[in-house]
Amino acid sequence: MDIASVVGLLVGASLLIVAVVIAPGSALGAFIDYPSMMVVVGGAISAVLISFPLKNFLGLFRVLKKVFFNKQENFGGIIEQLVSLAETARRDGLLALEGKLEEVANPFMVLGIQMTVDGTRPEVIEDVLRSELDAVATRHKAGKGVVDQLGRFAPAFGMIGTLMGLIIMLGNMSDPSSIGSGMAVALITTLYGAIMSNLIFLPFAQKLGFINQQELLAMEIVVRGIKGIQAGDNPRVIEQKLNTFVPPNTRASEKKAA
Amino acid sequence: MDIASVVGLLVGASLLIVAVVIAPGSALGAFIDYPSMMVVVGGAISAVLISFPLKNFLGLFRVLKKVFFNKQENFGGIIEQLVSLAETARRDGLLALEGKLEEVANPFMVLGIQMTVDGTRPEVIEDVLRSELDAVATRHKAGKGVVDQLGRFAPAFGMIGTLMGLIIMLGNMSDPSSIGSGMAVALITTLYGAIMSNLIFLPFAQKLGFINQQELLAMEIVVRGIKGIQAGDNPRVIEQKLNTFVPPNTRASEKKAA
Amino acid sequence: MDIASVVGLLVGASLLIVAVVIAPGSALGAFIDYPSMMVVVGGAISAVLISFPLKNFLGLFRVLKKVFFNKQENFGGIIEQLVSLAETARRDGLLALEGKLEEVANPFMVLGIQMTVDGTRPEVIEDVLRSELDAVATRHKAGKGVVDQLGRFAPAFGMIGTLMGLIIMLGNMSDPSSIGSGMAVALITTLYGAIMSNLIFLPFAQKLGFINQQELLAMEIVVRGIKGIQAGDNPRVIEQKLNTFVPPNTRASEKKAA
Amino acid sequence: MDIASVVGLLVGASLLIVAVVIAPGSALGAFIDYPSMMVVVGGAISAVLISFPLKNFLGLFRVLKKVFFNKQENFGGIIEQLVSLAETARRDGLLALEGKLEEVANPFMVLGIQMTVDGTRPEVIEDVLRSELDAVATRHKAGKGVVDQLGRFAPAFGMIGTLMGLIIMLGNMSDPSSIGSGMAVALITTLYGAIMSNLIFLPFAQKLGFINQQELLAMEIVVRGIKGIQAGDNPRVIEQKLNTFVPPNTRASEKKAA
Amino acid sequence: MDIASVVGLLVGASLLIVAVVIAPGSALGAFIDYPSMMVVVGGAISAVLISFPLKNFLGLFRVLKKVFFNKQENFGGIIEQLVSLAETARRDGLLALEGKLEEVANPFMVLGIQMTVDGTRPEVIEDVLRSELDAVATRHKAGKGVVDQLGRFAPAFGMIGTLMGLIIMLGNMSDPSSIGSGMAVALITTLYGAIMSNLIFLPFAQKLGFINQQELLAMEIVVRGIKGIQAGDNPRVIEQKLNTFVPPNTRASEKKAA
Repeated sequence: MDIASVVGLLVGASLLIVAVVIAPGSALGAFIDYPSMMVVVGGAISAVLISFPLKNFLGLFRVLKKVFFNKQENFGGIIEQLVSLAETARRDGLLALEGKLEEVANPFMVLGIQMTVDGTRPEVIEDVLRSELDAVATRHKAGKGVVDQLGRFAPAFGMIGTLMGLIIMLGNMSDPSSIGSGMAVALITTLYGAIMSNLIFLPFAQKLGFINQQELLAMEIVVRGIKGIQAGDNPRVIEQKLNTFVPPNTRASEKKAA
Repeated sequence: MDIASVVGLLVGASLLIVAVVIAPGSALGAFIDYPSMMVVVGGAISAVLISFPLKNFLGLFRVLKKVFFNKQENFGGIIEQLVSLAETARRDGLLALEGKLEEVANPFMVLGIQMTVDGTRPEVIEDVLRSELDAVATRHKAGKGVVDQLGRFAPAFGMIGTLMGLIIMLGNMSDPSSIGSGMAVALITTLYGAIMSNLIFLPFAQKLGFINQQELLAMEIVVRGIKGIQAGDNPRVIEQKLNTFVPPNTRASEKKAA
Repeated sequence: MDIASVVGLLVGASLLIVAVVIAPGSALGAFIDYPSMMVVVGGAISAVLISFPLKNFLGLFRVLKKVFFNKQENFGGIIEQLVSLAETARRDGLLALEGKLEEVANPFMVLGIQMTVDGTRPEVIEDVLRSELDAVATRHKAGKGVVDQLGRFAPAFGMIGTLMGLIIMLGNMSDPSSIGSGMAVALITTLYGAIMSNLIFLPFAQKLGFINQQELLAMEIVVRGIKGIQAGDNPRVIEQKLNTFVPPNTRASEKKAA
Repeated sequence: MDIASVVGLLVGASLLIVAVVIAPGSALGAFIDYPSMMVVVGGAISAVLISFPLKNFLGLFRVLKKVFFNKQENFGGIIEQLVSLAETARRDGLLALEGKLEEVANPFMVLGIQMTVDGTRPEVIEDVLRSELDAVATRHKAGKGVVDQLGRFAPAFGMIGTLMGLIIMLGNMSDPSSIGSGMAVALITTLYGAIMSNLIFLPFAQKLGFINQQELLAMEIVVRGIKGIQAGDNPRVIEQKLNTFVPPNTRASEKKAA
Repeated sequence: MDIASVVGLLVGASLLIVAVVIAPGSALGAFIDYPSMMVVVGGAISAVLISFPLKNFLGLFRVLKKVFFNKQENFGGIIEQLVSLAETARRDGLLALEGKLEEVANPFMVLGIQMTVDGTRPEVIEDVLRSELDAVATRHKAGKGVVDQLGRFAPAFGMIGTLMGLIIMLGNMSDPSSIGSGMAVALITTLYGAIMSNLIFLPFAQKLGFINQQELLAMEIVVRGIKGIQAGDNPRVIEQKLNTFVPPNTRASEKKAA
């Protein structure tokens, strides 16, 4: 569970609600308007539906889940495991890796080790792994793109809703007492659009960008590790090289030492 | 037919209409104003007419059709066909490809195979195919550019129309009862511009970008495949190489296996 | 004459005028205000005068003329001529090109041929031609830059004028009946700025970008052609190579065939 | 202490306070509204909490401290020290550097010298130092990113607060005398957002960018210096090369001469 | 003196003043408000003070002077002088250049020639000159950056001032007759910010970019010329090569011929 995302969303939403509740003469109910919600949420979703292939759009929920339920990549653990596999390979040969496959949780690493055990040529292994990595990067980009666009279209449909509300209000000016409430309703869509964009979609897109980058970095480390193992490199050298990919405080051996 | 585009456009438009209809005291008729439409649509089209060569502008309808009637590129099928051609070429020689030309639907692939059969030199074939690919990319860019600009000019002419409406209204303030309706009409152009931009042109441009990218990727695969066939590469190697261009779930052999 | 630019500008302007004329209770005269014009046009020109060297600014009229009187580069013709020159050179030697100089209209091609006839070394010819090409590109960029900036400063000075008008109006509120007309006048500068930017300068800048790109592409083709001629390449090979620079439907030999 | 940052912040804040105090009929108290502060500050912080991993957010205070308490990198001093170490190494061998380690304050330089003394291979030293440098750059980027986002979200939540205030006000129009004060309160959040962004976060982010760049340049100089020392280069040559990294007026030997 | 900058600034300012003076019912005095000036100018300067190291900020006046008192680089003259020096060097040896040093005004060229006479190695000369060139480029970038930021912060503080003015006005609505004037004063800061940005800082920054580019181009020509002289190249070849850096109409020999 990503504490920061959950706390940020809860605190942000609470603050806005509290600010409304404590304001003199205001009622929370004045801020709930279903047609406005329909225009902003529905409009933004429609625009995104047109913008992307259906498949990308349907991946949205999986993508949003990631914002809350991502677990930080454990670079140190990945490197440690690769080093341990390298030791096995050096001591008992590449075929001995098969026996250790069960211990490996990371499916990408399993794929690489499996191909190594099968005696696949190094270039082919790298090609296959990189193609997999590229496919993940493309899927990431598509997922983040949908969230980005929601963050861009939500305020636009907020403005569209406000314009519609103003035009309706301006056509009913015979009853001056209704002007205020008409205008209040009109402004609600802009408010919805601004909140959806700034408290939800734009921060989500930013967080996704970070998560995706970590995930790809972990895959990159696996690719390099598998290459080193297959080349029969010294496990210490492999560790040293892989450690240069991650900041000092998340390195494998240094952690052990700490 | 691109379901997502159609559904998105219909749902988006319906939502806005429903929101107007269910609003108390509003009439759909208040949202239809032909001169406003003329200013926004006409203005944006005029600006685009000036911005681009006539040819690009006239291609607009063909481009828009693509948003709704594009069919997803079948990468798996393309690769399968190239592999099958490679097998024929390996077994029976390059000239045997001529007999299989009828089975090939993709005109770009036909061009490449034809040149291969004719014994054209590899560099020339690649030059010709790449030049064709570049021409398609240029045409794509021009087409998307027109839609992009419509999405940018529509809100601008919406604002121009609103300013004109406000100036007219402000010059007729002797009758205060008409102020509201005058202002409502003035705002309609801004509404039109915002809807045209955010529900139509910007999402269309985004989808076009995606479609074009897929089309060029398919052409790139054909170019690589033809090169491999001409070089007499092993069909399995060709398949393996071409598969690295597409995400795992759309690959040729894996699909067959599934 | 660039039909699209002319039609676009006329249609756009007409639409706006018609929209004003058919609006009930409006007079075209209410949209003409010389001081407002002075602020927007004068202000944008002043800002551009400061932004660029005087020379660039003075080139503005030549640049604007280009938007209307550009003629599409005839790539097919240029390539055909280069191929014909290559045939002459191959048959009768480089010196024989001198006799064909009169038939060449393109001054850039004349320069290259002349140097070839004079026996200038290939590297020097390419350096000189590329330097000329770069100088044209720099001039293009400067010219487009001025139009771009006008498109950016016009709305800014429109807003400045409106702010000035509002401040004057707000200082004279003793006569409430004048508020409406005061505000109308204030808004006119914003309208002028928006129209100048969106109907004139921004589309002009876009078209200029396209024209300039075509012009440089034509020059690039000449440079490559001259190099091929001087190297004594086969005219067919030269044609084939130059044709890869232009989209298939504007190629030399294919046109002849059609 | 960074005088410019302190003076800028104090002068900017004072100017705004003075402008309010000297305005006729205004009271400073009208500009203090705790719920508004809560919405803007709390909202921006919530959005940033969602946008970044918790660790990056918690680094914010350390990052902000840097804006006020950074000390300019002393490039001349760093180069002088590296040259002096190079002289020792040349005269008495690399091992003699151990005795000079105490004089070195820069921990990054200590790390490099220590590895040199330990006889670590040059490539490994450079890998380790560069990895450290990259980690610092990543940390910098993350820190600046948080400040950048605060500068972007603060005005957004200012607008959200104003919309909420307007909706509350418009729902209570029965008492016209309260309209003015309700609107004043509504506008305060926009004011807070604008001040926070333009007087604090955006300038801070800009300054951070400069400080970070200097810090990385200093590290780059150390990396190059250590490489030169290990290679046994002439100390004068090392000085000359390192000096090309810094502007003439901050160079080592020229300073001594001045 | 840069005529275009002076004329642009005078014409722009005059136009705005005239527009105010000829407007019916307006007084120039209504546009002068010292506290507003304080907020916009002071606020923008404060923000820039925080954004940049003090040194960069203090260079602002020197930078602004350059906008008005820059003299166009005389590329033809520079090339002519380098060619003349090359002739001396070829005829009488590199040491003979010492006698011609007095005729050279450009201090950057003096530095290069001096090092050539001193027999400094070519790589070292180029390193030193390029380091100098980079330092100038860095100084340029810093100077332009300050002006850019002033152009960005001025409108922001204009808006801040207007918000403050509106809040004060809305708190004093008991006297309706003062509303107009209160709002007028509030808008003045936005006007100041817009004028400062669009008539002064943004155009200045643009001009600075152009001047800096010319200055660096002149330095680049000197570096290449010195290299050619030291290598003992034929003066004609040097001239030909240097001329490719400048547009045809500002070339050395062509000017002489004209």
